[in-house]
Amino acid sequence: MSILVMKFGGTSVADLERIRNAAEKVRREVDNGHEVIVVVSAMAGRTNELVGWVEQVSPLFDAREYDAVVSSGENVTAGLMALTLQEMGVPARSWQGWQVPVKTTDAHGAARIVEIPRENIDAKFAEGMKVAVVAGFQGVGPDGRITTLGRGGSDTTAVAFAAAFAAERCDIYTDVDGIYTTDPRITRKARKLEKISYEEMLELASLGAKVLQTRSVELAMRYKVRLQVRSSFSDEPGTLVCDEEEIMESRVVSGIAHSRDEAKFTLTDVEDRPGVAAAIFGPLAEAGVNVDMIVQNVAEDGRTDMTFSCPTNQVLRAEKALEEAAARGDIAFGKMIRDEDVAKVSVVGIGMRSHAGVAARMFEALAREGINIEVITTSEIKISVLVARKYMELAVQTLHDTFELDKIGGIETASEGP
Amino acid sequence: MSILVMKFGGTSVADLERIRNAAEKVRREVDNGHEVIVVVSAMAGRTNELVGWVEQVSPLFDAREYDAVVSSGENVTAGLMALTLQEMGVPARSWQGWQVPVKTTDAHGAARIVEIPRENIDAKFAEGMKVAVVAGFQGVGPDGRITTLGRGGSDTTAVAFAAAFAAERCDIYTDVDGIYTTDPRITRKARKLEKISYEEMLELASLGAKVLQTRSVELAMRYKVRLQVRSSFSDEPGTLVCDEEEIMESRVVSGIAHSRDEAKFTLTDVEDRPGVAAAIFGPLAEAGVNVDMIVQNVAEDGRTDMTFSCPTNQVLRAEKALEEAAARGDIAFGKMIRDEDVAKVSVVGIGMRSHAGVAARMFEALAREGINIEVITTSEIKISVLVARKYMELAVQTLHDTFELDKIGGIETASEGP
Repeated sequence: MSILVMKFGGTSVADLERIRNAAEKVRREVDNGHEVIVVVSAMAGRTNELVGWVEQVSPLFDAREYDAVVSSGENVTAGLMALTLQEMGVPARSWQGWQVPVKTTDAHGAARIVEIPRENIDAKFAEGMKVAVVAGFQGVGPDGRITTLGRGGSDTTAVAFAAAFAAERCDIYTDVDGIYTTDPRITRKARKLEKISYEEMLELASLGAKVLQTRSVELAMRYKVRLQVRSSFSDEPGTLVCDEEEIMESRVVSGIAHSRDEAKFTLTDVEDRPGVAAAIFGPLAEAGVNVDMIVQNVAEDGRTDMTFSCPTNQVLRAEKALEEAAARGDIAFGKMIRDEDVAKVSVVGIGMRSHAGVAARMFEALAREGINIEVITTSEIKISVLVARKYMELAVQTLHDTFELDKIGGIETASEGP
Repeated sequence: MSILVMKFGGTSVADLERIRNAAEKVRREVDNGHEVIVVVSAMAGRTNELVGWVEQVSPLFDAREYDAVVSSGENVTAGLMALTLQEMGVPARSWQGWQVPVKTTDAHGAARIVEIPRENIDAKFAEGMKVAVVAGFQGVGPDGRITTLGRGGSDTTAVAFAAAFAAERCDIYTDVDGIYTTDPRITRKARKLEKISYEEMLELASLGAKVLQTRSVELAMRYKVRLQVRSSFSDEPGTLVCDEEEIMESRVVSGIAHSRDEAKFTLTDVEDRPGVAAAIFGPLAEAGVNVDMIVQNVAEDGRTDMTFSCPTNQVLRAEKALEEAAARGDIAFGKMIRDEDVAKVSVVGIGMRSHAGVAARMFEALAREGINIEVITTSEIKISVLVARKYMELAVQTLHDTFELDKIGGIETASEGP
């Protein structure tokens, strides 16, 4: 019998009525002949309440106690979901992380799953149980204490179970009905994708499309777990995140992502010598600043300007780290210019690997609208630019039109590959 | 180093401020040189909320899922208490039932503690931990599933830990400041007792003084755990529940208990033959009716009347069981008379064992006030009477005066003993 993993997020189990609605979807899959592993989050708002209490009690909290407290929300939902299914006549039982056990590292608050032994749940399936309801987001560390996987960790729980149980598919039920070519709040032309590759989803997830936790996508890619993002509140199919070989449409660009939470730093008059980049970015890394884009100007008279971006909530930390490095004499610069009035817009598509001209087309389109590009970075399947924040929406709309993302298949550009 | 167990009930940990207040009391005991095991309930209202959800989802719920859900409230408090203590500089950590492990029977919803191994907690005390915070009310069954001990079960958890760790004392912090000679709402002359014996406390607990769970007192008696009931909201000493040998005061009567939740049944014209009592009370026991007092009138012409009492919330069940037994022809009676307008008043005291005349004095006092006694039962240390409900307060006040419970030591009656 084939196993299906179904994961319901906080808004999908926010109250007893929604839990019943979710259970109805599970029952239908059981009726279709599946054995199901259901992974649940805490009821919406519960985890925030618990985290708030912990932070009020102890601002620099012991992460082991944090985990013991905040994991309780998922336990409640798991039990209620199992009871709801039983009430519908579906043989179900709940499992807390330590009961499976979901073995993790001891990195409390951000643990990684090490192993999920199948024995206990398989034994119950063999006895006729149809649904194992698993509390998401949690596991148990090497010392027997409860761990959690970080915010959004229930997605990772779901994918890890799908991998461990060789599930046919892992359905992530959430409050959006799939992955879109771009944010529908920015352009009404945004179109829901039928399929997207792991690589593209990873770029979109890390670029701020908050539908899936990045780690869950990495895990799905590594174990080839077919992941479907779909709505709890409709019966429409969602978007399948899968291997690119499964994707028939020939697309160059799949989506346009954007992020408002970017800040740009420029250090002027920096000495242009080997080791200067390390001297600047070493202290930033130590201070926990996630430097994203880096640009070094062409040197003149042995001096240059260095520009980088980081999330806006790390600006103060970055400033402090650089000032301290300067005070120690480790680096020297003229001025430090901070610009929080920027945004990042990115074009993502696995087709870029085999198609040239995407960058040129992107830059031309932005230029046509008079949008100045401040910083550029690229990866194999992504081109990101930093622009003034006021142009963000216009840039997204223009690029969405340029690559004809409202049309299935998008446009073809000059092909380099076979 | 001597170990102290401190248990805080739901109202004592109802919010973060109260948890801090409770933690302050714990810190003081650590400063006094104790190692402390703190047992916590769920924050007030939480367990009711969880139970409500379970009952809404599944009226005839799976008790194993009920336990998984409702035990979560204690886990939250345990973590928050450990964090609060850490914040005060006290080395503390939390333990959920399965982590200790608190091994119980598999009677979900009403499990009994089988064993509490000391190893894990002792190892942490040896490493310098000063406070083990334990989630009350819960344990783990033989199959690794979470169990709960029934409402009020955290008292039992506390006493069981005190027994397992040979604690110097088990302090039950609650919203009353001790055990009183009677309900202070009925007479202002009610006096807080300094000490009370296990046997007396058991009679009072089962008679409706809701301060301690009956099972916790039984357990304390069996393992000679010195139990102190005291207020979370003051620093006054409370009432020590202990072995009668520790009680110096020579008292005949320690307290007057009362219960409004009593109903009286009379079956008229019952055949007076061997086996008739079994024929009546067998079906009642099978229906789960807790019959308390029983009176059989003197027979006349081979017929008699049979009177018994039970809790008011079991009246319908009792009626149904008797009617069905009559329909089957197992019993025959004239009329079934139901009276829910009664109350039980009880006089409790270990001194009764060695002092005669308590019953006579009690009946005289009630007669003086014109209070008719409908049913009487006695135990070695208790005399209970059923009276019309309207006389309940008057009966309690009269008996409190008669036995001079407002005076330390109470009155002496004619002694039979040495």
